[in-house]
Amino acid sequence: FASKLPQVGTTIFTVMSKLAADVGAINLSQGFPDFQAEPALFEAVDRAMREGHNQYPPMAGLPALRQAIAAKVQALYGRAYDPDSEITVTAGGTQSLFTAIAAFVRPGDEVIVFEPVYDSYVPAIETVGGKAVAVPLTFPEFSYDWAAVKQAISAKTRMIIVNSPHNPTGSLMGPADLAELSALVDGTDIVVLSDEVYEHITFDGVRHESLARHDALAARTLIVSSFGKTYHITGWKIAYCYGPAALMAEFRKVHQFNVFTVHGPSQYGIAEYMQEPRRHLGLADFYAQKRDFFRAQLEGSRFELLPCRGTYFQLARYDKISDLPEAQFAEWLTREAGVAAIPVSAFYANGRNDGVVRFCFAKKEETLAAAGERLRRL
Amino acid sequence: FASKLPQVGTTIFTVMSKLAADVGAINLSQGFPDFQAEPALFEAVDRAMREGHNQYPPMAGLPALRQAIAAKVQALYGRAYDPDSEITVTAGGTQSLFTAIAAFVRPGDEVIVFEPVYDSYVPAIETVGGKAVAVPLTFPEFSYDWAAVKQAISAKTRMIIVNSPHNPTGSLMGPADLAELSALVDGTDIVVLSDEVYEHITFDGVRHESLARHDALAARTLIVSSFGKTYHITGWKIAYCYGPAALMAEFRKVHQFNVFTVHGPSQYGIAEYMQEPRRHLGLADFYAQKRDFFRAQLEGSRFELLPCRGTYFQLARYDKISDLPEAQFAEWLTREAGVAAIPVSAFYANGRNDGVVRFCFAKKEETLAAAGERLRRL
Ligand SMILES: CSCCC(=O)C(=O)O
Ligand SMILES: CSCCC(=O)C(=O)O
Repeated sequence: FASKLPQVGTTIFTVMSKLAADVGAINLSQGFPDFQAEPALFEAVDRAMREGHNQYPPMAGLPALRQAIAAKVQALYGRAYDPDSEITVTAGGTQSLFTAIAAFVRPGDEVIVFEPVYDSYVPAIETVGGKAVAVPLTFPEFSYDWAAVKQAISAKTRMIIVNSPHNPTGSLMGPADLAELSALVDGTDIVVLSDEVYEHITFDGVRHESLARHDALAARTLIVSSFGKTYHITGWKIAYCYGPAALMAEFRKVHQFNVFTVHGPSQYGIAEYMQEPRRHLGLADFYAQKRDFFRAQLEGSRFELLPCRGTYFQLARYDKISDLPEAQFAEWLTREAGVAAIPVSAFYANGRNDGVVRFCFAKKEETLAAAGERLRRL
Repeated sequence: FASKLPQVGTTIFTVMSKLAADVGAINLSQGFPDFQAEPALFEAVDRAMREGHNQYPPMAGLPALRQAIAAKVQALYGRAYDPDSEITVTAGGTQSLFTAIAAFVRPGDEVIVFEPVYDSYVPAIETVGGKAVAVPLTFPEFSYDWAAVKQAISAKTRMIIVNSPHNPTGSLMGPADLAELSALVDGTDIVVLSDEVYEHITFDGVRHESLARHDALAARTLIVSSFGKTYHITGWKIAYCYGPAALMAEFRKVHQFNVFTVHGPSQYGIAEYMQEPRRHLGLADFYAQKRDFFRAQLEGSRFELLPCRGTYFQLARYDKISDLPEAQFAEWLTREAGVAAIPVSAFYANGRNDGVVRFCFAKKEETLAAAGERLRRL
C-alpha cells in the first residue's frame, strides 16, 4: 500500500510524552495541566448520565451549551453569535481545526500558516490535498511580518490560519496585527481560521485580541476555542468553533460526517457548569503565577528564557548548554537530565534550528521545582 | 465564499429528528436506542473523573481499553490484533470511517460503495477529493452483485467500503460474499473498509461474518465497530477501528491530527466495564424480540415489511398507502401520522425511489406500540 502521507510521522507530543514515560522523566513536553477540575463539573456529568442523556445530542451540539458559549463570547468580545447557526461544539480544538480546513480547502488550494506552526495544521491541509505556504514569524520576537504575508498571498490562497495566544511561542497578536491582516484579505474570498484555544491565558495586563472583536475580520473568520484549556479537562476533548452562518454552514457539512456530534454527558455537564459564567476568571492570574514560578526556577541556570506573553508554554534557548540540534537536545534532556521538552524545530517544515525548546508550566509547583532543580544542574 | 461541497446538505438524521421534535412525532427515524445503559458504566466513568483522569489519554486510546478490545475481537473472530499497533479508539464510528477514508483516498481516487449507502461515506470521500463509484445492491434482497463490482473496479480504485449488518436494509454478508470480495481484490492494492458497527445484532441464528474471520481480507481491511450500539451509549461517541499495522499506521497519521484522542473518562469507564467480557451477550436476542414486537405491530397495516436479518432497522414498503416519493412520504408520515421514518432514497445519490422507508425499532415496547397504532390507521 503506497502511503498517501509519506511525509507525516507521529505527532511530537506523542513521541515526547512516550519517551518521558519510558525513561521516567518529568514531562514538561506535551501541553496539559496536572490540576484537577472542579467536582461540580463531575457531578453535572454524572447526573446527565444517570438521568439518561446518553444518546446522540444534536449534531451542532447541545442547545444549552451553545447558548452558554454565545453568552460568554458576547460578554468577552462584544459580538453576538447565533447559537443555532453560528456555533458548533466539537471533539476538541484539533477537530475544529481539521474540520474547518477540510470544509474549505480543495485539492490544489493554498493555505498560509506561520512558522513555528502548531503541528496539526499542515498535515490537515495535506490530508485534503491542499498546500501549506509557510511564512516565518520574526525571530526571536515571533511577531508577524505582514509584508511577507502579502508576498505569500496568491490567487490560490484559500485560507490563512492565525493563532494567538501562540503555541509554541507564547506571543500575542495586537490590534495592529488585526488591522494589517484585515487590510490584506479585504476584497478577497480568503477565509481566516483563528486558533484561540488559549484565549484566557494572557499575561501582564495585555488583553486577548480575539478576531471576534474586529468587524471586518469576524465576517470571514472561524474561531476555535477549547474547554480543555479553560477548565483543566484536556482529556475530555471538547471544544467549539464559531463564525458567521455562511462559514459555519460549510463547517457543519464536514463536521456531521466527520464525528457527527460530541460526547453528550460532557456537553450537559459543561452547559450546567457554565451557568456560573465567571468560571474562567482568574485563569490568567493562575498561570501568570505558574509562569513566574517556573521562570524563577530557571534563574541561575544556563537556559536563556524568551518572553512569555500568553499560553502555558515557556521557550528557552540552550546554546550555553549544548550545540546539539533541537530534536537531539530534547531527547538528551529527557533521557539524561530527566526533563522532557518539545523541540521548537518540530513546528517548522524544514527543520530550522534556533536552539530553543518549549517547556509546559501548567504543572504543580512541586513538579516545576523538581524540574527546575534538574535544569539548573546543566 | 464558493462552497467546496455544494452538493452536501444536512444529514437526513438531523433533518428527520428535528422535524419529529418540531411536530411532536414518535421518532423512529434516526437510529438510537432509548434504553438506559447500566449504572456500572456510569460509576466507572465517574470514578475516572474523580480520580483525576481528565487529561489527554494516549493518542491511539487507553492501553487497557485497547487490550479489552483485542481480547474481545480474538474471542469473537479468532484473530489476534496487537493493541499497540493495530487498534485505535475513535470519537464514534463516523470518525473511524471518515479517518480511514481520509488516510487512504487521494484526490482523484475512486472508492466503491454499495447503494443504499450509509449517508456519511460519500461526503467523506468527496471531502478529501475522491470520487464515489456506487454499485447498487439488488432490490429487494439487498444482496451483492459481484459481477457488477468487478465491472466497477478500475486502476483508480483505492478502497471498497462494505457494511454488514447493513444500514439501512438489515441485510447481511455471508461467507460467499467474503470469498467473492477477496477474489476481486486479490493482487490489487485496494484497501477494504468494513463498517461492522452492528456486529452483535444479527437474527435467526445467523452469525456475523466479520471480515476479521477471513485471512486474505483481514490483511487488507480496516474494521469499524462501536460501543454506542453495543452498550446503549450512542451519545458518548466512542468506537474503534482495527486492522493490520501497516494500514493502522496510515490511519493514525490522520487520526492524530483530526481528533488526536478521545474522551478519557469514558475510555476508563468502558475499559473497566469490559473486564466482565460477556456484556454484549444477549444483545441479538434483545433486539430480535424488539424486531418481532414491531413487526407484529404492523400486522394488519398496509405496510409490507421486508426481511430484517440484522441491525435495529426495519424497512417497509408503503405503495398500498401512498404513491408519494419517499422523501415526501417520510415527511407526510411524520407530520400527518405522527411517526418519523427515514426515506431510503436518502441513501442513493440519484434519488432512487422504491417506495420504502426505514423504521428504527430500538425503542421501548410502549413506544413501538404507540407507533404501531398510528401506522395501522393508515
Ligand atoms: C493534542 S496534544 C498536544 C497539546 C498541545 O497543544 C501542545 O502540547 O502544544
Ligand atoms: C449519526 S446519527 C445516525 C444514526 C444512524 O446510524 C442511523 O440512523 O442510521
